[in-house]
Amino acid sequence: MTRIAVDAMGGDHAPFEIVAGAVWGAAQYGVALELVGKQDQIEQCLETIQQEGFLSDCGKAGKKKKIKVDIKSLDIKITHASEVIEMGEAPGQAIRKKKNSSIVLAVNSVATGSSDGLVAAGSTGAAMASSLFGLGRIPGIDRPAIAVTLPTMKKPVVIIDGGANSNCTPQMLKQFAIMGMTFSKNVLGIQKPKVGVLNIGEEAGKGNELAQSTYNLLEEEKEKFNFMGNVEGKELFLNVCDVVVCDGFAGNVVLKVVEGTSSLLFKMIKSEFKSDFLGMIIGMLAKPFMRRIYGRINYEEFGGCLLLGVKGVTVIAHGRSKAYAIKNAVRVARDAVETQVNKTIAEII
Amino acid sequence: MTRIAVDAMGGDHAPFEIVAGAVWGAAQYGVALELVGKQDQIEQCLETIQQEGFLSDCGKAGKKKKIKVDIKSLDIKITHASEVIEMGEAPGQAIRKKKNSSIVLAVNSVATGSSDGLVAAGSTGAAMASSLFGLGRIPGIDRPAIAVTLPTMKKPVVIIDGGANSNCTPQMLKQFAIMGMTFSKNVLGIQKPKVGVLNIGEEAGKGNELAQSTYNLLEEEKEKFNFMGNVEGKELFLNVCDVVVCDGFAGNVVLKVVEGTSSLLFKMIKSEFKSDFLGMIIGMLAKPFMRRIYGRINYEEFGGCLLLGVKGVTVIAHGRSKAYAIKNAVRVARDAVETQVNKTIAEII
Repeated sequence: MTRIAVDAMGGDHAPFEIVAGAVWGAAQYGVALELVGKQDQIEQCLETIQQEGFLSDCGKAGKKKKIKVDIKSLDIKITHASEVIEMGEAPGQAIRKKKNSSIVLAVNSVATGSSDGLVAAGSTGAAMASSLFGLGRIPGIDRPAIAVTLPTMKKPVVIIDGGANSNCTPQMLKQFAIMGMTFSKNVLGIQKPKVGVLNIGEEAGKGNELAQSTYNLLEEEKEKFNFMGNVEGKELFLNVCDVVVCDGFAGNVVLKVVEGTSSLLFKMIKSEFKSDFLGMIIGMLAKPFMRRIYGRINYEEFGGCLLLGVKGVTVIAHGRSKAYAIKNAVRVARDAVETQVNKTIAEII
Repeated sequence: MTRIAVDAMGGDHAPFEIVAGAVWGAAQYGVALELVGKQDQIEQCLETIQQEGFLSDCGKAGKKKKIKVDIKSLDIKITHASEVIEMGEAPGQAIRKKKNSSIVLAVNSVATGSSDGLVAAGSTGAAMASSLFGLGRIPGIDRPAIAVTLPTMKKPVVIIDGGANSNCTPQMLKQFAIMGMTFSKNVLGIQKPKVGVLNIGEEAGKGNELAQSTYNLLEEEKEKFNFMGNVEGKELFLNVCDVVVCDGFAGNVVLKVVEGTSSLLFKMIKSEFKSDFLGMIIGMLAKPFMRRIYGRINYEEFGGCLLLGVKGVTVIAHGRSKAYAIKNAVRVARDAVETQVNKTIAEII
């Protein structure tokens, strides 16, 4: 049985929502758990969940459902961690100083084979750094990167890097392309993924130095990468390609602007429907439809992003994750373990 | 009377939609025009508009209205340009080679005082380069930048640079901050604009080298810039600050992702309402509300972006602009002429 380690102390809503999501995922996706964090707090969470259950909006804004999980039926191991790495700490320093932190011990569990993969909703930098040092890099990959799946009208698109590396070289982006293609094929099931470079114009020669050089590198091996050239931000959702490479700064800006724009639009829709009496009635009728759309684009549905390029499975969840998002992150971790993405990357590289 | 020069040959829908938008704007905002481009084509457009009018969706998707403009009542000058710079051409080379292109001659009109400001919907690079060489840089400003106004629930936010400079230094971003503040104050009427740096985390020390160094530069003169620190993509619409500085690559990615995300959401809403019979009825009732929201975020409403840092007024409109967007771009140009943004920047620098 696949066992997923979860950093129970990481994220804005730790430990309760994290523990709740973890057991929910374990029950739903048939995996064993290793909960890493302060033992007494974890045990208290488990007791509350067993006795009272918990409320979750199930990825649809507003509507909450009571979730019940029979914890006794699950295979759960608790690993005590006396320290926690906070959001503001410098990652490299923090993981060296806090050897007994929940994230470092959770990574250790994967490194020693006690668990098969890991879910972390705390500091992204700390999750990255501890995975890099604890699991090790795949030979031939300079820097691990975060693969993020974006929803579109048709098939999902992978953006890589989603925020692991702020300063990148063209060579790194070429490696991101290989990792992204493997993810797209193994996890998303896209047979011959097409690669594009995030840029601010379609023509070759557009954009900054990084985008231009990356374009040239991929163009040299056009067939191998199924390279289709530059992709602009407005085309990300139009399925012009399956994998978009960029540095982690641009990639993270993209993700957060998608989040900000969707949230603005939903607010505008709400306020527009409230502008008159007729609108309020139509708005009420339209609510279930709006909830379904919210569910289609909500990051909670995607659970978390996979860190590619390390020798093991680390799923990085949103810091704001509640139970529903963590449940889905457990699914992503299970899929990544079963499809062996990082092993395949190692073989290709 | 303020006279606005319009590059009649620039943009995907040139010349007809450009000429139509220009005369519509002239009539609505009380300005004189100088239409620059192929004389016979411009005259033919004017004749068709005078006789038949034209259809425009007025910024609201789908619903078209017939627009009538009495051209004889307007002050219109036509300046013949025998050449046109195409979208794919390298800007610097193109403006040197095509001295009789519509964009070069339109800039000349502003430089010689024949017109007071300029609207261009063709190649952004060519509009930038010809403005830089034709109008000249404001002393103390290394590179002109594009100021873009984003809609939010409350007051509009300025992003600078929106795409003029792909590779930037921290010093350039500091100058963008000064230009953006002047724009925010003079054109948008915000008394003491707050400045932030686009970044991928809130804490100091986050992000790439450019963002980090810019943070330090602005922090040194915190009071002067009313500096509030880093701004993430998801906060752009939350009015945490009034001016967001970034390099033109990141800025252009932001704008296009906003465009792409909104368009995806509207498509999802449409398809969700079509999923069953009840949905189709509710969708029909909701249509006028959706149209109003579309109008609030539609780039056509904002008409165009002002190029800051040159000695004159250049408004860069979207390449896909139709008449309604060009009409609004004429308004932006008129406002920029009247509020003398670039003159104020020169005084401050």
